[in-house]
Amino acid sequence: MKDLLIVGTVAFDAIETPFSQTDKILGGAATYIGLAASHFPLRSGIVSVVGSDFPQEYIDLLKDRNIDLKGLEIVEDGKTFFWSGRYHNDMNTRDTLDTQLNVLADFQPRVPKKFRDVKVVMLGNLHPAVQLSVLEQIDNTELVVLDTMNFWIESTPDLLHKVISKVDVITINDEEARELTGEYSLVKAARKIADMGPDYVVIKKGEHGALLFYEDEMFFAPALPLEEVFDPTGAGDTFAGGFTGYLASKDNYSFEAMKNAVIYGANLASFSVEKFGTERMIDLKEADIKNRLELFNSLTQFEINLTD
Amino acid sequence: MKDLLIVGTVAFDAIETPFSQTDKILGGAATYIGLAASHFPLRSGIVSVVGSDFPQEYIDLLKDRNIDLKGLEIVEDGKTFFWSGRYHNDMNTRDTLDTQLNVLADFQPRVPKKFRDVKVVMLGNLHPAVQLSVLEQIDNTELVVLDTMNFWIESTPDLLHKVISKVDVITINDEEARELTGEYSLVKAARKIADMGPDYVVIKKGEHGALLFYEDEMFFAPALPLEEVFDPTGAGDTFAGGFTGYLASKDNYSFEAMKNAVIYGANLASFSVEKFGTERMIDLKEADIKNRLELFNSLTQFEINLTD
Repeated sequence: MKDLLIVGTVAFDAIETPFSQTDKILGGAATYIGLAASHFPLRSGIVSVVGSDFPQEYIDLLKDRNIDLKGLEIVEDGKTFFWSGRYHNDMNTRDTLDTQLNVLADFQPRVPKKFRDVKVVMLGNLHPAVQLSVLEQIDNTELVVLDTMNFWIESTPDLLHKVISKVDVITINDEEARELTGEYSLVKAARKIADMGPDYVVIKKGEHGALLFYEDEMFFAPALPLEEVFDPTGAGDTFAGGFTGYLASKDNYSFEAMKNAVIYGANLASFSVEKFGTERMIDLKEADIKNRLELFNSLTQFEINLTD
Repeated sequence: MKDLLIVGTVAFDAIETPFSQTDKILGGAATYIGLAASHFPLRSGIVSVVGSDFPQEYIDLLKDRNIDLKGLEIVEDGKTFFWSGRYHNDMNTRDTLDTQLNVLADFQPRVPKKFRDVKVVMLGNLHPAVQLSVLEQIDNTELVVLDTMNFWIESTPDLLHKVISKVDVITINDEEARELTGEYSLVKAARKIADMGPDYVVIKKGEHGALLFYEDEMFFAPALPLEEVFDPTGAGDTFAGGFTGYLASKDNYSFEAMKNAVIYGANLASFSVEKFGTERMIDLKEADIKNRLELFNSLTQFEINLTD
């Protein structure tokens, strides 16, 4: 029995920013989600695949964060998924320099028996066929959250729509929401996406925060304005990890809980971008998160007396 | 004795959007500011200039909103300032099609005696020399708020810096803040602008809301996510009118009051874009504003128990 099942890539990333660059470092959607969620009291497991070139050091790092890797398939003589990108000066846009699917190309996910009875499933960005296969292998799930990207909207729209119809929550960025629906207004786009299935629609706007839509209600979590963004890689996945980590640890899926969850998502994402890759998620302390919650509080909370 | 003195253009605008277009309609920074501020209980006056082509109908409209036009110079045989622009499909960017300075070219502002003892001065977008001249003509002011634009940053930087050094609050949009300071990070830009003089720095991000900076504190007012934006013209000026209208009516210039003021600014701006030009500011009712404040409240307010 798990609180949170995470599906997504476990990868090598090579990142260039205007300020610095890395060789191959630990990356991937499931990695970022898992590390972010590890800051909540819960039992999590990852379903993913790597090659035999994936270092024991990274496996130990994830295990040390209490992430169950029984569902991490290691393909003998296979090579781990690799992504390389370069950020522009504004740190908001980037070019993909290289994508090597490697072991991801033929990945058939197998959900370990002990993961099948799980409260929350986070379907991180991956081929919709893999996401669907995972959903078919699990029971009694209380909440399924989906993340996706423009690549699947363009290349596998039918499969993607099938996944979308089966989930409770979708997290998607603003440009993708527009592409998926043909609506420029995010309010209209969210309504169209909700019509496809999900009760909750979370539209991520990067440095401009995130919008949560539920029935006729809206909630907004700002991104914390930062002096410096060091590396935006994984910010969206970290948001998803904070979001689902909070929900899985609280076992509460009300609109009020969802509001707190997007604040926690924004909170963790604001740390993620402060260092390269997963570095900041690893050295992050609970006190840091609480202090930053106070910042989110003072950033957004006001009191206007309407009877004035 | 006035609560709010407004300096800025009173103009004709011709607007094209992807959906519709207007002939010459009422526009100008001082017009939008005055109409927005007229929704608060205060005595306001405008210092500006128009030509004799400016219709009595528009003068009556402003007077009906309780705006004192003693400081509105009417130049015999002169032509009123005219601006024309076309919005792109995203409604966030626009091209200026035509700018005719007309009577604005030689404008020497004269502040009427009864306006000189004023609580709040809103220096709307205009030549910094005009803004400085107005500041030299007034006494005992409790708060001076400045708005400007990239044109003055580029063409009259020294004069602009002189005005900035004399004001308590500056409202400026994100791209202008970056241009003025050479800093991409808005947190760093705000600090540099505060070093130039203002205690409070408000950075307007259009559809992404507005940030308020004061010493080491930050506050964020989201823009209300809308189904449709009909015409963004004057949204920034309407924001400034809601902001200064609230402050002048409350006679309170604390950080807490400034937070409420940016919420009121965002509130009124969210109405302004719903119709062409000043139309929505004119038919707006107090009940609409209060209902929308409730929306801002539910959009942003959350409660996380940190001791959980």
